[in-house]
Amino acid sequence: MAQQQFFLGIDGGGTKCKARLENANGDLLAEGLAGPSNPVQNADLAFQSILDAASEAVNAAGIPGLTLEQLSVCLGLAGVNVPAYRSIAEKWSLPFKNVKVTTDLHVACVGAHGSPEGAIVITGTGSSSFACVNNVHTGVGGHGFPLGDKGSGAWMGWRGLNYTLEVLDKLQPPTPMVHALCRALGTDNTREIVGEAIDYASRDFARLAPVVVNHVYKNDPVATAIMEDGKAYLEAVILRLKDLGAKRISIIGGLSGHWTGWFAPHIQQLLSPALNPPEIGAVVLARQAFKEA
Amino acid sequence: MAQQQFFLGIDGGGTKCKARLENANGDLLAEGLAGPSNPVQNADLAFQSILDAASEAVNAAGIPGLTLEQLSVCLGLAGVNVPAYRSIAEKWSLPFKNVKVTTDLHVACVGAHGSPEGAIVITGTGSSSFACVNNVHTGVGGHGFPLGDKGSGAWMGWRGLNYTLEVLDKLQPPTPMVHALCRALGTDNTREIVGEAIDYASRDFARLAPVVVNHVYKNDPVATAIMEDGKAYLEAVILRLKDLGAKRISIIGGLSGHWTGWFAPHIQQLLSPALNPPEIGAVVLARQAFKEA
Repeated sequence: MAQQQFFLGIDGGGTKCKARLENANGDLLAEGLAGPSNPVQNADLAFQSILDAASEAVNAAGIPGLTLEQLSVCLGLAGVNVPAYRSIAEKWSLPFKNVKVTTDLHVACVGAHGSPEGAIVITGTGSSSFACVNNVHTGVGGHGFPLGDKGSGAWMGWRGLNYTLEVLDKLQPPTPMVHALCRALGTDNTREIVGEAIDYASRDFARLAPVVVNHVYKNDPVATAIMEDGKAYLEAVILRLKDLGAKRISIIGGLSGHWTGWFAPHIQQLLSPALNPPEIGAVVLARQAFKEA
Repeated sequence: MAQQQFFLGIDGGGTKCKARLENANGDLLAEGLAGPSNPVQNADLAFQSILDAASEAVNAAGIPGLTLEQLSVCLGLAGVNVPAYRSIAEKWSLPFKNVKVTTDLHVACVGAHGSPEGAIVITGTGSSSFACVNNVHTGVGGHGFPLGDKGSGAWMGWRGLNYTLEVLDKLQPPTPMVHALCRALGTDNTREIVGEAIDYASRDFARLAPVVVNHVYKNDPVATAIMEDGKAYLEAVILRLKDLGAKRISIIGGLSGHWTGWFAPHIQQLLSPALNPPEIGAVVLARQAFKEA
């Protein structure tokens, strides 16, 4: 027990935090799942979610005497491409033996391609992308809502809500999507909606995205216009990743399935399925960084 | 001195707070100017700005023995159409004799028309509008950035910055506006821009609006597209105010001059000049609420 090494990979995003615990042989011991872990949105909550997900994995592994202090960890976190937020995460007093901090995009890319080389587009609560070509890392897009993150759940939900408020102000005609969004919000009273939504974080806007997505399939004209804008943006991102020389490009995240179906055929042909999820990429990077001979 | 009444009107917005002090006869005694006073953006700062502007006016009046405790005040504040923020403002322990809280739109409307009846569009840091018809108040638009506030300085600056980041990501072609925005930001490094702008409030985005406005006059295609979107929104707002039955419609705020020139002739014909600024409307409402017989 004393000499054995344990590696934990964390995939931390705006809605949830996934942990994967492996032994030195690369055997899966257990997994853990906790809440939001984007340090840009809420650093204290992100810290707690990481601890919760790691503790759940350690408890589920059922290995007598195993504690968080024995884990060599790679944290893949949204937002830490911004130096100020990377610095926050690097200063956390986490109980682990070793900690490497990198982006959610980096761990996702390693997971998706089983290799450090390739590119990844993530579209879930947020959206962002990343290429690793000849060991040079280039981020494309992201930047967080509302600066960027087009094609994300937050962006889709926000666009739908924005239009809904214009309808309630009698500036635009209603569509079925608007009625469905009001049902999801529990009210069609402008003051009540604004009173709630004035403090919305990305994940709150993202909760409305499924309503917009569903109405694209129902040919709602506003939902379709939102989809066309997001599609155009994500297609430009994918072409940029190809121009950067990425060998293999994958798109992942909660909305990836929807977007892929709407892309033009020549864009779809540029995409390859992700081989493994981000938390596996994070364990691979933890092992690379901390494995003792 | 003991029986004399003093009335203070406050016009509080996202960038500045104006105070106007009058005696019971309606004579101007002094004015005051302080910083941001939008309780939605920063309630503590708004509280302090109101005190600062009021103190400046009292000091400038040079009336021996006059203190804040003798003033009957009307606060016209952005954001207090949302009940939660009105409640914050109503609970402030301000030192004044009497305080009435209403919206920046209400005081602007009374100021602009010299009457409670009419409608007002404000486009400065934020954008919003308001009609008073047969004593019924109706707000149209506003809601705060990013939920609403199309056609505001915050919205224009944000749109310009959003496009700039897409250019730096090599997803869109550069235009002269993009180079000018990078000069205004002091960098064309994406991480540096995002590191700053990730915490931007409305007034920070609004500081970039003049760059976008200037490039509309230079026929920059992106600045022009932003202007067209804002124009279409504000024209719809003005038509809605007319449909509500507003007798007289004025547009005020730092960007009002720019927008007016771009409106279609039939929209321009619906507009009348504002007769007086919002802080005069606020003094009128303070006098109506608190004047002793």
